[in-house]
Amino acid sequence: MPIPPVIHDLYAAAERVRPHIVQTPMLESPHLNEICGGRVLIKAEPLQRTGSFKFRGAFNTISQLGDEAKSGGVVAYSSGNHAQGVAAAAQVLGLPAVIVMPEDAPTIKVANTRSYGAEVVAYNRYTENREEISERICQERGGVMIRPYDDPRIIAGQGTVGLEIVQQTRNMDVVPDAILVPCGGGGLISGVALAVRHGLPKTEIYSVEPEGYDDTRQSLEAGERKEVDISVPSICDALLAPTPGELTFSINKDLLAGGLVVSDEQAREAMRQAFTRLKLVVEPGGSVALAAALSGKLDCAGKTICLVCSGGNVDNELYSEILSAY
Amino acid sequence: MPIPPVIHDLYAAAERVRPHIVQTPMLESPHLNEICGGRVLIKAEPLQRTGSFKFRGAFNTISQLGDEAKSGGVVAYSSGNHAQGVAAAAQVLGLPAVIVMPEDAPTIKVANTRSYGAEVVAYNRYTENREEISERICQERGGVMIRPYDDPRIIAGQGTVGLEIVQQTRNMDVVPDAILVPCGGGGLISGVALAVRHGLPKTEIYSVEPEGYDDTRQSLEAGERKEVDISVPSICDALLAPTPGELTFSINKDLLAGGLVVSDEQAREAMRQAFTRLKLVVEPGGSVALAAALSGKLDCAGKTICLVCSGGNVDNELYSEILSAY
Repeated sequence: MPIPPVIHDLYAAAERVRPHIVQTPMLESPHLNEICGGRVLIKAEPLQRTGSFKFRGAFNTISQLGDEAKSGGVVAYSSGNHAQGVAAAAQVLGLPAVIVMPEDAPTIKVANTRSYGAEVVAYNRYTENREEISERICQERGGVMIRPYDDPRIIAGQGTVGLEIVQQTRNMDVVPDAILVPCGGGGLISGVALAVRHGLPKTEIYSVEPEGYDDTRQSLEAGERKEVDISVPSICDALLAPTPGELTFSINKDLLAGGLVVSDEQAREAMRQAFTRLKLVVEPGGSVALAAALSGKLDCAGKTICLVCSGGNVDNELYSEILSAY
Repeated sequence: MPIPPVIHDLYAAAERVRPHIVQTPMLESPHLNEICGGRVLIKAEPLQRTGSFKFRGAFNTISQLGDEAKSGGVVAYSSGNHAQGVAAAAQVLGLPAVIVMPEDAPTIKVANTRSYGAEVVAYNRYTENREEISERICQERGGVMIRPYDDPRIIAGQGTVGLEIVQQTRNMDVVPDAILVPCGGGGLISGVALAVRHGLPKTEIYSVEPEGYDDTRQSLEAGERKEVDISVPSICDALLAPTPGELTFSINKDLLAGGLVVSDEQAREAMRQAFTRLKLVVEPGGSVALAAALSGKLDCAGKTICLVCSGGNVDNELYSEILSAY
């Protein structure tokens, strides 16, 4: 296992990504505060380049590659947001990119990945192994694999979300009681946790996962990595990892206070509230932390909660369907 | 006619509103840059408190009222965004508010106005005069009228959008060639123009209006205030003023380079692009400046353009219908 990043790696990542990212705002709505019974600050990563936080880690990683990536380029597997992050970062840095994506990935994520100049290779996520396919492509082309979360450079890049949260809450003269972060493989939350533990040592950090994919919650309770059955359907396509990353879990098991779980319907309701109250387009997986706060998974009464909306890459058909359930 | 505000009034407004507003981000998308053929920086006011820039002017005005407003409260007429801005500002400042709104205002705007604790009085915008109704309510209750745009305190408050644009483009080391701003009565653009003329003296400023409601464009060409026929239907409910404000036009006639006009379909397309590329919910009237850039109303080739997306208060039914036209 590689060595986990430390706070200094996050600062270095922030220097690298700063000229290329949006410093996303911290949003707040009196209506959402009222529903939650406390103060809720929302870090709006759908506004990030490529529509999710994933560009941060991808750029931090690819910008550190040496000559080995110059000819063969980069290869990644992803349900969509990491795909777009890698494709866009490679484009900025002038490298070719091949992305292995599930056949049933949202159309918008496939189209966007291609629009950043990447080649897309489709696979069946129930019958094929995306890591094997990706490794084969790497060997054939001499490419460098960019893993979605279990890499210290990825974690440090995603951790810049946490550095911004620390700075923005300081500027607001606020110390959050808790921070809620959507969790798939655990790259975002492990990076955020490193930043928050350093800058806001008293703030509790919780992962939020969709029902059926609460492998991080189960692993935190067991003290070791657990695996879930990935045949269960979920609307949260960005968060369908079967088990926590080895590296990410080594960080998360020490720094997280616990894991929360929300239903698909709670995610849909959070997407509707983000539309109405924040004017922010949030995808299902990106909305689970907001869903946890709105549905009372954590008692927010009288507290200040910070949460991450992590992405907004949702097809217009699904988005319209979800809005129509008002 | 009252005395127009000067840059000092904008700075004072910024001090008043700062603790209560979102400093909205400047967004950018490589895809939108490509469509426009230049660099397009998008000031995202849908993320503002109440979902539009209107809170800025309302708060700046109401926070300066003396004892005369303590008992009778404030009264405003508005198709919706000024209504929400006034209602929310009055709520923050602990004053009662009555808002006169058209019967056919978007449901979300009426519901949101009520949700800030305001009383809503409906009128027919084709047969009744909203100013007369509002004046009568003011007299009956001893309330203070908060005009939507023709007031130096409103203009100074909306001008804080321009101050932020000046600061944010400086931080990016960019001098925009032009700034495009949606225009109804002209409050936002006159305030922005004052800030931009002071901070970015070489940048050209253009109003953008919906087809049939190009009274500011016509007035700029004629050198005097012109009036349009308001029986023409338009999707841009926020921009249906029949004629420029007296005070706003006295500023705009000197500071604006010209007026652009977009169709409803161009506004719809801009809303779809904002959904897909920016993850930003923009209402029809709020999207006209983006629509002008995307549809080539101004030649952006090789230039840097800054534009304001001014609001995001759109009903979920209409939004879904517009997205479904992809």
